[in-house]
Amino acid sequence: MAEPTRTDVLIVGAGPVGLFAVFQLGLFDMRCHLVDILDRPGGQCAELYPEKPIYDIPGYPMISAQGLVDRLMEQIAPFTPGFTFNRMVTALERLEDGGFRVTTDENEVFEARVVVIAAGGGSFQPKRPPIPGIEAYEGGSVFYSVRRMEAFRGEKVLIVGGGDSALDWTLNLQPVAESVTLVHRRPEFRAAPDSVNKMYALQEMKQLEFLVGQVTGLHGGDGKLTAATVKGPDGEVEVPCTRLLPFFGLTMKLGPVADWGLNLHENLIPVDTEKFETSEPGIFAIGDINWYPGKLKLILSGFHEAALMAQAAKRIVSPGERIVFQYTTSSTSLQKKLGVA
Amino acid sequence: MAEPTRTDVLIVGAGPVGLFAVFQLGLFDMRCHLVDILDRPGGQCAELYPEKPIYDIPGYPMISAQGLVDRLMEQIAPFTPGFTFNRMVTALERLEDGGFRVTTDENEVFEARVVVIAAGGGSFQPKRPPIPGIEAYEGGSVFYSVRRMEAFRGEKVLIVGGGDSALDWTLNLQPVAESVTLVHRRPEFRAAPDSVNKMYALQEMKQLEFLVGQVTGLHGGDGKLTAATVKGPDGEVEVPCTRLLPFFGLTMKLGPVADWGLNLHENLIPVDTEKFETSEPGIFAIGDINWYPGKLKLILSGFHEAALMAQAAKRIVSPGERIVFQYTTSSTSLQKKLGVA
Repeated sequence: MAEPTRTDVLIVGAGPVGLFAVFQLGLFDMRCHLVDILDRPGGQCAELYPEKPIYDIPGYPMISAQGLVDRLMEQIAPFTPGFTFNRMVTALERLEDGGFRVTTDENEVFEARVVVIAAGGGSFQPKRPPIPGIEAYEGGSVFYSVRRMEAFRGEKVLIVGGGDSALDWTLNLQPVAESVTLVHRRPEFRAAPDSVNKMYALQEMKQLEFLVGQVTGLHGGDGKLTAATVKGPDGEVEVPCTRLLPFFGLTMKLGPVADWGLNLHENLIPVDTEKFETSEPGIFAIGDINWYPGKLKLILSGFHEAALMAQAAKRIVSPGERIVFQYTTSSTSLQKKLGVA
Repeated sequence: MAEPTRTDVLIVGAGPVGLFAVFQLGLFDMRCHLVDILDRPGGQCAELYPEKPIYDIPGYPMISAQGLVDRLMEQIAPFTPGFTFNRMVTALERLEDGGFRVTTDENEVFEARVVVIAAGGGSFQPKRPPIPGIEAYEGGSVFYSVRRMEAFRGEKVLIVGGGDSALDWTLNLQPVAESVTLVHRRPEFRAAPDSVNKMYALQEMKQLEFLVGQVTGLHGGDGKLTAATVKGPDGEVEVPCTRLLPFFGLTMKLGPVADWGLNLHENLIPVDTEKFETSEPGIFAIGDINWYPGKLKLILSGFHEAALMAQAAKRIVSPGERIVFQYTTSSTSLQKKLGVA
């Protein structure tokens, strides 16, 4: 097992509420590490609607989702949180000393006194395309993301989809793979026009193949893919392939959180409204993933929940220490932590 | 009795939380009117520390108190709330139809379905100087603010204090009053240098009198002042006066809210955490004035409280109507209300 990374507070989810939690915890000198399934901070905001304006953040008549994330990153910078992106937290166990061990799907291990679940609607997970028998090839020949390009070197790669991910990986893997075939239902794409033009240019030069159609069958054995059937307007063709990358978008799933014994209420985690603690002492849940009477899934509510949680977390991280509640406007000690005094 | 002003929601207090409540209520089509003891929006923020930076407003690594108030005013502008400034709400009664009648200290009357108390630490009230027997003259000859300059025309005015209010009213009343005498403990002032210079220039021209010292006694009868004793470095002098204006700063008092039967908890109003409703149905309390387990007096908590309160207020203002919870990011209907779609 890898050497664990130790931190005061492990935050599952780096959306706006998880990020602001770093600020509130930092004011009380707690160090934070965040783990997120996405490849950058911002959660749903950054993933689903980065350019869209939000109108109900107090004090911002209008701000883009990405703009809000950028400001929050700036606000928490003085506390230098740790980030681990592209990882799903798969296991959460209580240690004998009362702390927690958190493990990711790549077997990184974290040890923390307090765990804060700020996972929003859950994990973004790739949608599985409706291809019969695809499960048998997952993990061996079928992948929903590219973590290391080297894993595709010299392979016959079949990419399915019409969005930016499909186009980007078609272009990125083309120089590495033995062959790249892109399959999409239509000749039109929902992707950056520049990428589409580049793809058609490579097709023109016979450096990749683009087929209009749908994958209807997979061939191979023992989890190893050898070919796929593609059904197009002119009938079926068999495409030799050893790797399949379907990009059918992301869906939100609660994921492993469901297995942590937190007495779920309609896929949400019930908490109290004093500390936003779950049924497990030391595990808190803030933001869209929690539930209490009156709960609204608003970012501004998550901010409030983060502030009250931080007080309770401090009592766990520094037991016996007197908690002094101060204002950033008047406290020189807080201003020093923020690097402004 | 004056014709009442009718509104859906009467908000007591126009600090940041009262202002943001207008936004949350406005999204659900409720019209708001705000009453505040100060002469402009912003509450404590604008009164006590307008220039001071705040660091814990989520999404603002730094914003001045006045800056925050300005942005909130911009954010609620689409909902065109009514404002009544310079007034204290003195009475709150329930009407037979379940609504409320609210009366100010100038006898303006408002009728509303819902009352939201967002009064922060309470009312800003002038500090009474330690002059024996001053109470007997209050309201007749002793005033703590100038509401109408005409009330001072032809009077012998004695002003006490060393801040901007004392200096400003010395200069403003000098042309109107028969005489103006300013008393301050020291020849130095905590006021705009320009005002101080003007005052000394007028003294030079014998158009007003400035005395270093303290008022130690009042003379008169039947609530009518005739003179005051001023004790200075060279002994006592008697100053003829018919009006006394002491400017000794403001203090925060809960004020009439204490008499509204809301089961106070250490001068705070207990509320539930689902709707932030008080022990009186239809009366809500949000921001620093409320109390519940875990309560922190943070502006960001008041924002959350305003959002949850608005849902409950809607059920009272529009009984039986289905409440549809929508996001400003995706709802064209909300965007129309905000004037952006």
